[in-house]
Amino acid sequence: MGSASIDRVNLALFGLGRMGAIHLENMVKNPRVNLSYLVDVDVKKAHSMKADYYLDNTKILSNEDCDVVFNDKMIHGVVICTPTDTHISLSLKAIRAGKGVLCEKPLALTIESTIQCYEEAEKYKVPLLCAFNRRFDPQLRDLYEKRHVVGGVQSIKTCSRDSPRPPMSYIKISGGIFHDCAVHDLDVLRWMVGEEPESIYSVAHAHIPEIAALDDVDTVYIVLKFPNGVIAHVDLARDCQYGYHQTCEIFGERGNIMSDNPPRSALHFAGSGGETNDVIHFSFKQRYAAAYAEEIAHFLQLLRGDATECCVKPKDTLRATFLAQAAEDSWRTGGVVDLKEHFKVVFGDQCENPLL
Amino acid sequence: MGSASIDRVNLALFGLGRMGAIHLENMVKNPRVNLSYLVDVDVKKAHSMKADYYLDNTKILSNEDCDVVFNDKMIHGVVICTPTDTHISLSLKAIRAGKGVLCEKPLALTIESTIQCYEEAEKYKVPLLCAFNRRFDPQLRDLYEKRHVVGGVQSIKTCSRDSPRPPMSYIKISGGIFHDCAVHDLDVLRWMVGEEPESIYSVAHAHIPEIAALDDVDTVYIVLKFPNGVIAHVDLARDCQYGYHQTCEIFGERGNIMSDNPPRSALHFAGSGGETNDVIHFSFKQRYAAAYAEEIAHFLQLLRGDATECCVKPKDTLRATFLAQAAEDSWRTGGVVDLKEHFKVVFGDQCENPLL
Amino acid sequence: MGSASIDRVNLALFGLGRMGAIHLENMVKNPRVNLSYLVDVDVKKAHSMKADYYLDNTKILSNEDCDVVFNDKMIHGVVICTPTDTHISLSLKAIRAGKGVLCEKPLALTIESTIQCYEEAEKYKVPLLCAFNRRFDPQLRDLYEKRHVVGGVQSIKTCSRDSPRPPMSYIKISGGIFHDCAVHDLDVLRWMVGEEPESIYSVAHAHIPEIAALDDVDTVYIVLKFPNGVIAHVDLARDCQYGYHQTCEIFGERGNIMSDNPPRSALHFAGSGGETNDVIHFSFKQRYAAAYAEEIAHFLQLLRGDATECCVKPKDTLRATFLAQAAEDSWRTGGVVDLKEHFKVVFGDQCENPLL
Amino acid sequence: MGSASIDRVNLALFGLGRMGAIHLENMVKNPRVNLSYLVDVDVKKAHSMKADYYLDNTKILSNEDCDVVFNDKMIHGVVICTPTDTHISLSLKAIRAGKGVLCEKPLALTIESTIQCYEEAEKYKVPLLCAFNRRFDPQLRDLYEKRHVVGGVQSIKTCSRDSPRPPMSYIKISGGIFHDCAVHDLDVLRWMVGEEPESIYSVAHAHIPEIAALDDVDTVYIVLKFPNGVIAHVDLARDCQYGYHQTCEIFGERGNIMSDNPPRSALHFAGSGGETNDVIHFSFKQRYAAAYAEEIAHFLQLLRGDATECCVKPKDTLRATFLAQAAEDSWRTGGVVDLKEHFKVVFGDQCENPLL
Repeated sequence: MGSASIDRVNLALFGLGRMGAIHLENMVKNPRVNLSYLVDVDVKKAHSMKADYYLDNTKILSNEDCDVVFNDKMIHGVVICTPTDTHISLSLKAIRAGKGVLCEKPLALTIESTIQCYEEAEKYKVPLLCAFNRRFDPQLRDLYEKRHVVGGVQSIKTCSRDSPRPPMSYIKISGGIFHDCAVHDLDVLRWMVGEEPESIYSVAHAHIPEIAALDDVDTVYIVLKFPNGVIAHVDLARDCQYGYHQTCEIFGERGNIMSDNPPRSALHFAGSGGETNDVIHFSFKQRYAAAYAEEIAHFLQLLRGDATECCVKPKDTLRATFLAQAAEDSWRTGGVVDLKEHFKVVFGDQCENPLL
Repeated sequence: MGSASIDRVNLALFGLGRMGAIHLENMVKNPRVNLSYLVDVDVKKAHSMKADYYLDNTKILSNEDCDVVFNDKMIHGVVICTPTDTHISLSLKAIRAGKGVLCEKPLALTIESTIQCYEEAEKYKVPLLCAFNRRFDPQLRDLYEKRHVVGGVQSIKTCSRDSPRPPMSYIKISGGIFHDCAVHDLDVLRWMVGEEPESIYSVAHAHIPEIAALDDVDTVYIVLKFPNGVIAHVDLARDCQYGYHQTCEIFGERGNIMSDNPPRSALHFAGSGGETNDVIHFSFKQRYAAAYAEEIAHFLQLLRGDATECCVKPKDTLRATFLAQAAEDSWRTGGVVDLKEHFKVVFGDQCENPLL
Repeated sequence: MGSASIDRVNLALFGLGRMGAIHLENMVKNPRVNLSYLVDVDVKKAHSMKADYYLDNTKILSNEDCDVVFNDKMIHGVVICTPTDTHISLSLKAIRAGKGVLCEKPLALTIESTIQCYEEAEKYKVPLLCAFNRRFDPQLRDLYEKRHVVGGVQSIKTCSRDSPRPPMSYIKISGGIFHDCAVHDLDVLRWMVGEEPESIYSVAHAHIPEIAALDDVDTVYIVLKFPNGVIAHVDLARDCQYGYHQTCEIFGERGNIMSDNPPRSALHFAGSGGETNDVIHFSFKQRYAAAYAEEIAHFLQLLRGDATECCVKPKDTLRATFLAQAAEDSWRTGGVVDLKEHFKVVFGDQCENPLL
Repeated sequence: MGSASIDRVNLALFGLGRMGAIHLENMVKNPRVNLSYLVDVDVKKAHSMKADYYLDNTKILSNEDCDVVFNDKMIHGVVICTPTDTHISLSLKAIRAGKGVLCEKPLALTIESTIQCYEEAEKYKVPLLCAFNRRFDPQLRDLYEKRHVVGGVQSIKTCSRDSPRPPMSYIKISGGIFHDCAVHDLDVLRWMVGEEPESIYSVAHAHIPEIAALDDVDTVYIVLKFPNGVIAHVDLARDCQYGYHQTCEIFGERGNIMSDNPPRSALHFAGSGGETNDVIHFSFKQRYAAAYAEEIAHFLQLLRGDATECCVKPKDTLRATFLAQAAEDSWRTGGVVDLKEHFKVVFGDQCENPLL
């Protein structure tokens, strides 16, 4: 797999919901992609999207016929955007059929299954890319490249506030704010700091009664400490009226570098009430448009052999998930979590697994 | 032409230089486009671009074989990005063959030929779109929609500073800064104000000796007055070190609304020298990326009959060109140009032509 | 005391260090102030400052003669900017002599002495104003007035980074970063939220070896939770290269309101490296210039009887100090501090004291 | 006059209107000033202001008794803020009595009287400072100092929009927008460019009917050309709803440097309508607060001999006035004014006067 002999890449897309639609558009716009299959429970919708994009050569499959994809020798990879509980089985099938996998987060519902999935991908020598989209955002990558402009890093903050507030139907199955949202921020912190944190503490509250009723929260602060002395803070909210807030800033001995919210446009009005700038992006689709396109491009690189190392390593997926759970534990217990000890509790005899 | 029966649109692209490459990419990404032909003097380059985009069904033609396009009954429209002096003959051929035309500016080297071209397009009932790209920029369109937030408009300013400084080889054949650059600003002013100006005055200087040697200038201020009392200013420069500056602001009784330069990213660094924001876009390709895509989309609308009126009317092309020439005249004579009188001089017996 | 019959106010200033010099300037510029005495250990310096400001009617006293002030029936109030360990004795002497007191923070070295001082002030019916300068900052006051624009408050953050890094001689006697710096942020949080927090947690690190050697830290994050569900974060640093960073932002159901860093000027330069704005203010003297003038003005109001209630109440001083200590305790123990229980431990039988 | 032997400076203030009140406050706050006299037509008002500032040693005079000031040997200088038509007679009296003069603009109603006044000041060896306040603005001074960061200057723009719209009673006696407002911008251009311009052109309109009725205008654009090739633009408006707009920007071969509008505060709110920053300063009193204080300080320097050269030279006053008139002439005639020729017309046999 991943041989340079591949020129145009044959892909199948599973799931045509919000993320599926985003990936579909990026695949259509990428001349390197030959989109061979659209697989969805709603075949009618799939046909309609096929028509919208003039995908004359794309076949439509319903979920039950999905093995057609795995049995198709021409297929190089699959993109999985189906409901969360189907990720692991589809991924494993694809891997075992020798297909590369780009799977939306979370890869699996348990840490054990996640490890298993990565081990299968190693065994079958196929790329397995878990879609931590922020790793592909040009602005965050730029922040990563330039972070040393501040000299020695001393502290780092992220702030992620969702817009629009997701529907309760989604929040119910989201896995909770820690697994659905915090996991991204915690991965960004690990990425920027270059170390695993040693302690984590979290306070949170549900200001929205429907969220409180789910035993979930909508407003979260997380504080971490890293062995190198760096301290970190995460600020999360489920409902941000002024748009999709996604910032990260790094402070150090020579200054502060920040990845701020890009406004939707550079139009502004000065009137008697002050100067008003345009709103920031409305949601993830707009804010991370470039990141999603880069994600597909990276998947193609892996499939074609142009890149040999995946930008999101098994360790990234596993550690970020572990931290999200630890943050949730801290909130539930009200205490600080010592991550070294917690690691042993969570991973047990897997502790020495090189994937971690 | 322009019938709703057209589904996917068959196009030919003439010229694969800077603008041709931009249009090519937007056509490839637009699923509605079937790119049937690439026509260029450099057939090798055309083949290489065909390969880059996996355009299996696109035919390559050298310039001398371009009649193949005009004789192809399947072709709905052509996009012309060839050198300036070929625009008019290619446009006329296409029009007479019943093809719609999207042509880079200027449509022709003389006002007479421009009028002729529009008359032929009317006669043959094909869309003729002269590529005034700013008319398609989402931010400027937004400014246009919202301009009444300032109440009665009292004054308006544009500032357009080029980046990078074009090579002398281009400047030599550019038609001079008034026709190459000012024409866009003058069109934007007409668009925003909604009237034709009554006087124009221009001062200018060549700070760059090579440009002075061409009897051209690199720095220009133009002032206009409109019958409704609005006064306007244009600020132009050929060489702007901090990026491609493109702003427009409108002042009125209730405030000021501005289309400012969007920065390349929202990354910023605060250090002992102050706070530094990211640079603005480097050049037109980045700044007007969305405008170029919209331009192609509008061309498709016209060809498919989804839109019946072209966003850039004959009058827009003709009046903007007339104003650019008047501004140049003002600079050369050092005097104010009365536009009503000048109009009669320039257009002679065409003055009553309804296209004007 | 504080009777409306006072017209011009007779004051004595104790201590001519950094803060003394700031207060001196503001007193000189306030026509309501008659500065009767300058008291300092360095009589020569006092004479020089008297000359600089043409204070013909101001008497100079050395520290040992300071009782002259307390015995002077004409004196309405004293401003105390002497070293920390002399605050309490000077304040008590002044109070017992019937003089109003504006004293730099901390009022005393222990919570017991602080309570005692406030009790004496109540008994002698003189104003006692502990100089929490941020309470007088016009921008923070504006934030306070407008905070409800966000609807229900959900979270709040402050960030205070010192510039320039104080000399080690100062840091040594500063009481540590929690008492020297965090106390201000904690007071601002209490002010904005309008409640006492219920829990506090702190992580910190000394990136600067000399500070580590003092068993102090230079970088601190504090997280608090309030009974109404609001969560709060404090970000502190001792050494900020880009200027004196002092921000506070409040997030709620309708948006986010922020008191940002005012730049030193609105001069900016756009060049090939991006757009550079002017630096923010260099230090507290510049950033809080208006606050210090307002502080003196408020002291005059209290002395003249134009205001009957002090903007900084005994509770504010005591609770902020209590929280600063709790934050330090959290850092030292590595655990979360339950503030209700901690309150009982710290205040013992004073718990029911109405000043708290 | 202007001898270093002067320590504290004895001044008299003529006129207690808007500008008089501003100067009064700055004189009171400046410990170097001993304000000996307040002279105003409204003696009651003068007494009230004396009381507000506790000016125990200041004498009040009505206009008719103003000779008391000129006969007082102790007085070093006078500050003249009376109505425009009294400036010249008061200035001349003061000069001939050996007093330094700080006079609000315009110094006189004719160019001849202005020249005469400067000649008298030279003859009597007293400082004569015409209050071009922008010359003392720290931000504009900073712009001046740093303007070479752009390399060779190529173009320069100012924009001055008044807030609030002055009352018609003021506009009537203001001398018209060219003499009242443009004169400041034209002086700033001369200052920044360091040359006298060679041509000027102006378009204007009265959007406000009451202003049109005065044969005055409320919206003006002026374009200038300098011998060194620099081109310049001035944008003026009488009524700006979003505050007192005062900007200047300089473009050159290496970038653009701008003195922008400082906002009133750094408070901003992000809500569903976008991000709103605080308004800019309301009017000249707030925007130029520091400039007015510096202006008084410079007057003191001149009187004490600490500075030997006045920041506003005779040439500055005379040339700026000349340009304002030429701009008005251009507007009235609709033509470009050749300044070299116009100079001869206006100054006649004064052309060789070294003051010009």
